[in-house]
Amino acid sequence: MKSDLDQLMQDHNLDAILITGPAQHNPPMRYFTGTIHMTGGDLIKKRSADPILFYNPMERDEAANSGFETKNLADYRFDELIKITNGNFLEATILRYQKMMTDYDLTSGNIGVYGKMDVGSAYAIFSGLKEKLPNLEIIGQLGDSLLLQAMATKDSDEVERIRAMGKVTTSVVGKVADFLTSQRSVNGVLVTSNGEPLLIGEVKRKINLWLAESGVENPEGTIFAIGHDAGVPHSSGNAEDLLSLGQTIIFDIFPAEAGGGYFYDFTRTWCLGYAPDEVMALYEDVLSVYQQIMSEIEVSSLCYQYQDRTCELFEEQGHPTIKSNPQTQEGYVHSLGHGVGLYIHEYPRFISNAKEDRLAPGSVVTIEPGLYYPEQGMGVRLEDTVWVRPDGEMEILADYPLDLVLPVK
Amino acid sequence: MKSDLDQLMQDHNLDAILITGPAQHNPPMRYFTGTIHMTGGDLIKKRSADPILFYNPMERDEAANSGFETKNLADYRFDELIKITNGNFLEATILRYQKMMTDYDLTSGNIGVYGKMDVGSAYAIFSGLKEKLPNLEIIGQLGDSLLLQAMATKDSDEVERIRAMGKVTTSVVGKVADFLTSQRSVNGVLVTSNGEPLLIGEVKRKINLWLAESGVENPEGTIFAIGHDAGVPHSSGNAEDLLSLGQTIIFDIFPAEAGGGYFYDFTRTWCLGYAPDEVMALYEDVLSVYQQIMSEIEVSSLCYQYQDRTCELFEEQGHPTIKSNPQTQEGYVHSLGHGVGLYIHEYPRFISNAKEDRLAPGSVVTIEPGLYYPEQGMGVRLEDTVWVRPDGEMEILADYPLDLVLPVK
Repeated sequence: MKSDLDQLMQDHNLDAILITGPAQHNPPMRYFTGTIHMTGGDLIKKRSADPILFYNPMERDEAANSGFETKNLADYRFDELIKITNGNFLEATILRYQKMMTDYDLTSGNIGVYGKMDVGSAYAIFSGLKEKLPNLEIIGQLGDSLLLQAMATKDSDEVERIRAMGKVTTSVVGKVADFLTSQRSVNGVLVTSNGEPLLIGEVKRKINLWLAESGVENPEGTIFAIGHDAGVPHSSGNAEDLLSLGQTIIFDIFPAEAGGGYFYDFTRTWCLGYAPDEVMALYEDVLSVYQQIMSEIEVSSLCYQYQDRTCELFEEQGHPTIKSNPQTQEGYVHSLGHGVGLYIHEYPRFISNAKEDRLAPGSVVTIEPGLYYPEQGMGVRLEDTVWVRPDGEMEILADYPLDLVLPVK
Repeated sequence: MKSDLDQLMQDHNLDAILITGPAQHNPPMRYFTGTIHMTGGDLIKKRSADPILFYNPMERDEAANSGFETKNLADYRFDELIKITNGNFLEATILRYQKMMTDYDLTSGNIGVYGKMDVGSAYAIFSGLKEKLPNLEIIGQLGDSLLLQAMATKDSDEVERIRAMGKVTTSVVGKVADFLTSQRSVNGVLVTSNGEPLLIGEVKRKINLWLAESGVENPEGTIFAIGHDAGVPHSSGNAEDLLSLGQTIIFDIFPAEAGGGYFYDFTRTWCLGYAPDEVMALYEDVLSVYQQIMSEIEVSSLCYQYQDRTCELFEEQGHPTIKSNPQTQEGYVHSLGHGVGLYIHEYPRFISNAKEDRLAPGSVVTIEPGLYYPEQGMGVRLEDTVWVRPDGEMEILADYPLDLVLPVK
């Protein structure tokens, strides 16, 4: 949580953190600046101090809306730095950072750097800055970074934003269900009013339209996969596929707030018209594991144990899992869930090599058991996004029926 | 142009270039991989050799669609590297790059690195790689980079993609015009069918909807600004503003291909119902300069001279310009145009400190003169995207009328 930042900075032995880049589509900056619109800037937070936001002069008002102490980057006179360096853009940029660091008494100690930028620029700027300020240790964190650890638990404002995305998501899912059930079927496939077969590409187009209409983004695309593709967890579905009755459709939708904000993550599995026995049996296996896990998860417990438990439950039903066979392409082949926030996949993780990740109060995680049989042309996954409330209760942030069969005419 | 890459690599003294990151919303990677969908990977191109694309195993088919020689990143056994480094994700990543470089005989020489990544990760990975391979010079280019120079001219495939975006853009502009002219006006403002005033926020919502319907993205937003806001070039327009008759509306729209591809950039200025004399006069000044510049621009000529020429023409009309007064907030306050491609602003530039930028054959640039008088509540800008054809002709990539007045009921 944001309120843990000072403690986390101490744990990571960081005296300061620097976040750079735009406030849009750049989770580290957006984490601090919220919904303000800023095409570029820098934010520096020293341990036990409030952040300072460095802004470009045309974005003065937006920067002020952040509520942080602000500093105009124009005060560093880039035009003069460019002259001093004979037009060398890189050297002028390094000099500007050197001045910023010097002004804020950050010429020694450890500073963590975060934010999205061109890799070459980042490497050149921070290598150059290190030469200018040899006592300042510039730390790049991969994997288990301070920010990912902070983001792993959400404050109430963040939860409400994820909840609002959940409302949009389930509303669009409802529109898709209504759209599909209002079509006719001819010879076992859905057809549109003009008698042409309905294709998955058209369904996806409508999903994007309804998401846009709700003012949200769909940066990672949508999985709407039928039959064999539903049996392959990473297939997003073939635009040319027909909507055949009696086949599993995996509909996994994960839109985000406009500008690259908070995600929601949601999956239902549908069968149009009817479900053949083997599909119904597969669905019931997944549903029972979903319900069992939902009843068992407890605040503050270790996540990986629920992955183990899910494997155990599926194995009891007779399915192969990645626990019994790490290479299996059939049965249960992925992890139980993941944290959701400004990234679609964040902490905590439900995997055996993240043994310390817990369902801490404030976590927002997906629970998404699934079974896949690509050779038999079927797959089932059920997924909700769950808030681990401060009072220890588990709360699904957007309710939607779990039903398998969508009736058609 | 892509075909200039080997020559440019020689000019920049680079033996190889490395592009990293996803193929979506990452122009350096997309420049090479086109429309394939890849969540992450690396591309290495040695001088005078074809690129090699390193892919993640689940994206084998997408990688193959790039047409490049491909290499499975799984062959580098990250799982084993993680064990060797006792779970250190950063060290394992550095070791993998070291192996890749060694395999492809890139342990010495100069390699330029590009692509979007977390700044800390980039700094940590490439600093670490440099320690492992001390004879390999890792170059980060800011400003006038090899890739921006290559991208400054487009091949015919790129031009056709920008042209297709122009078609979508002008089609949506037409829908907006039809929508506005189909509303009634009451007491000098447009009202919707239920008698409520129409607000700019609603117009923008429709723009986003029509863009989404066309399957494109609008990552940078749209400028739809009326009155005083039209007089401020960087104002995107206030969602709560009414659509008053007789006021200038600057409508600047710059959508991109889905997944972060090629942009189009287009502006018209509209007056609903009628244009007051001072607005008509301002419009005619901008129109005449637009037409004059369009008639004067020549293939291979220097861009900055047209910025000077535009200032001269506006000054002859009696307007202040940034040439006569660099601090002016009135009159002509920005540059004449810019290159358009995978970035909304790229090379060539029409500014006095880019004296070498030319209208080389294959350039795609905007021409967008404008006049702004925020205190008088008006602004006018006209913008088209122009292809400098290999035969030396200038071609506007999407035609649309330049008319000022939109009639209303």
